Amino acid sequence: MNDAHPYLVGLIGTGVLPSLTPPMHMAEARALGITYVYRPLDLTALGIAPDRIGDLLAWAERLGYDAVNVTHPCKQSVLAHLDRVDPVAAALGAVNTVLFTPAGRVGYNTDTTGFAAAFGDGLPGAGTRHVVQLGAGGAGSAVADALLRLGTTRLSIVDLDPIRATALADDLGRRHPLAAVDTASAADLPAVLADADGLVHCTPVGMAEHPGLPLDADLLRPELWVADIVYRPLDTELLVTARERGCRTLSGGRMAVHQAVAAFALITGTRPDPDRMTAHFLDLVAADSPVDPALAR
Amino acid sequence: MNDAHPYLVGLIGTGVLPSLTPPMHMAEARALGITYVYRPLDLTALGIAPDRIGDLLAWAERLGYDAVNVTHPCKQSVLAHLDRVDPVAAALGAVNTVLFTPAGRVGYNTDTTGFAAAFGDGLPGAGTRHVVQLGAGGAGSAVADALLRLGTTRLSIVDLDPIRATALADDLGRRHPLAAVDTASAADLPAVLADADGLVHCTPVGMAEHPGLPLDADLLRPELWVADIVYRPLDTELLVTARERGCRTLSGGRMAVHQAVAAFALITGTRPDPDRMTAHFLDLVAADSPVDPALAR
Repeated sequence: MNDAHPYLVGLIGTGVLPSLTPPMHMAEARALGITYVYRPLDLTALGIAPDRIGDLLAWAERLGYDAVNVTHPCKQSVLAHLDRVDPVAAALGAVNTVLFTPAGRVGYNTDTTGFAAAFGDGLPGAGTRHVVQLGAGGAGSAVADALLRLGTTRLSIVDLDPIRATALADDLGRRHPLAAVDTASAADLPAVLADADGLVHCTPVGMAEHPGLPLDADLLRPELWVADIVYRPLDTELLVTARERGCRTLSGGRMAVHQAVAAFALITGTRPDPDRMTAHFLDLVAADSPVDPALAR
Repeated sequence: MNDAHPYLVGLIGTGVLPSLTPPMHMAEARALGITYVYRPLDLTALGIAPDRIGDLLAWAERLGYDAVNVTHPCKQSVLAHLDRVDPVAAALGAVNTVLFTPAGRVGYNTDTTGFAAAFGDGLPGAGTRHVVQLGAGGAGSAVADALLRLGTTRLSIVDLDPIRATALADDLGRRHPLAAVDTASAADLPAVLADADGLVHCTPVGMAEHPGLPLDADLLRPELWVADIVYRPLDTELLVTARERGCRTLSGGRMAVHQAVAAFALITGTRPDPDRMTAHFLDLVAADSPVDPALAR
């Protein structure tokens, strides 16, 4: 008789029904012999307003959930309903993983730790001194925070909304006082990228619904590494173009896998196998789209 | 990659935390290679009043539950919150299994079908013409209904509360007009049992907290079969005494297993192996108590 705890986990957010995170967790659990049910809890499909995140958390806890992942639009608002928050998540002001423990609800952010792990795994030896980041939204905040923890001493933030770019730069500068965080406009990109080690892309451009390139392809000189957080498709136009220009690249899939690796470890106390989880992920993407996932490795 | 649906099931009631039903379902699912999480949802532990069963059902459905089993004190009150009810459960006025389906919530009663299956399995060839039943509570209603469907033409109900006995007898008589359902007092037992094929015991007497025999041992003549719905302990004082007197016996454990077999089949659409589920159950009982479960087979 197997006495191991059977896990129940949810993913709270809008538009989460097609997320690959639930099947990715469940496939890894099966491989480890762990009973694990992971349900997408789509606020839109359920007709639950995002400001009722407190009710949803309370009922998930009552109904035997061990943990939930949290995504847009609740990563900030969930903080008010937690008993303790990990310092990295607290500094960022965003939580994507909540554990229901006997000692209360505890929040973490595995987007940040996931990006750092993906970066170390996918771009070993890459320079991090000066990085240019396109996009200052929620995902951009987590990536920027991870870069500054990875040793970036200058981070240049470019967003179509200069107020949002400045707000993020100010916030990051306060939390990482030894780093220089500045903002730039799209027109400044040639000059700013000339000095940079790498480029991180954190906008929706390149997703199936938003095709295209987020910047002029001629700016992609071969010395630059290029990371994309978009993972649907895995091989975005940005990554394809960057490889054609001779750049090293990091796909959003790797970040998606590593945030799940980190969340799975927090939830179960068992370290999953990142290579096997990557294989699950590529299988799921292949089942989900006609693109050859081998291209994106 | 395993594409089978991962199941999420709950048990709603008071005092259900120690129930063996959740681990019994989960052990069978593991044996079948089905991912299956079954959570006890104890109203007392959760601080949820039984009259809030509607809220609890609604949230369980939203939070991705496939089904719930329902026990005391909600088997009747749950009916108001269902879209459709199986005719057997509707006639009984009690539901112990609710499926959340795309077409709505559907209620069943596997206590009735479970007793019938246990009886066929554990007392093959036993006479059912005249049965005496001790106890007219909720479990007694389901057992009485099953007996009348099994071909009992005379059912004698004995309860310390004559009003409850009469109410059940009247209700059963209405629903099974071809059968004679009468009531008797404890003082009538010698006369009534003299004519009977068997005795079914449906009171709490014999449970660890209510030790003892529910009737005079001298009434247990060897021609009588004796069924007990108590299953903790598996081997009640009644069953031990009946065997000593030469009676054939049916333990409450067999009914507990068969109601779970029937519920599992409804929930998953997969027929479980009753022998293997019995083995799981006996393992669980053995782990739970020092009594030798072999005695109770």
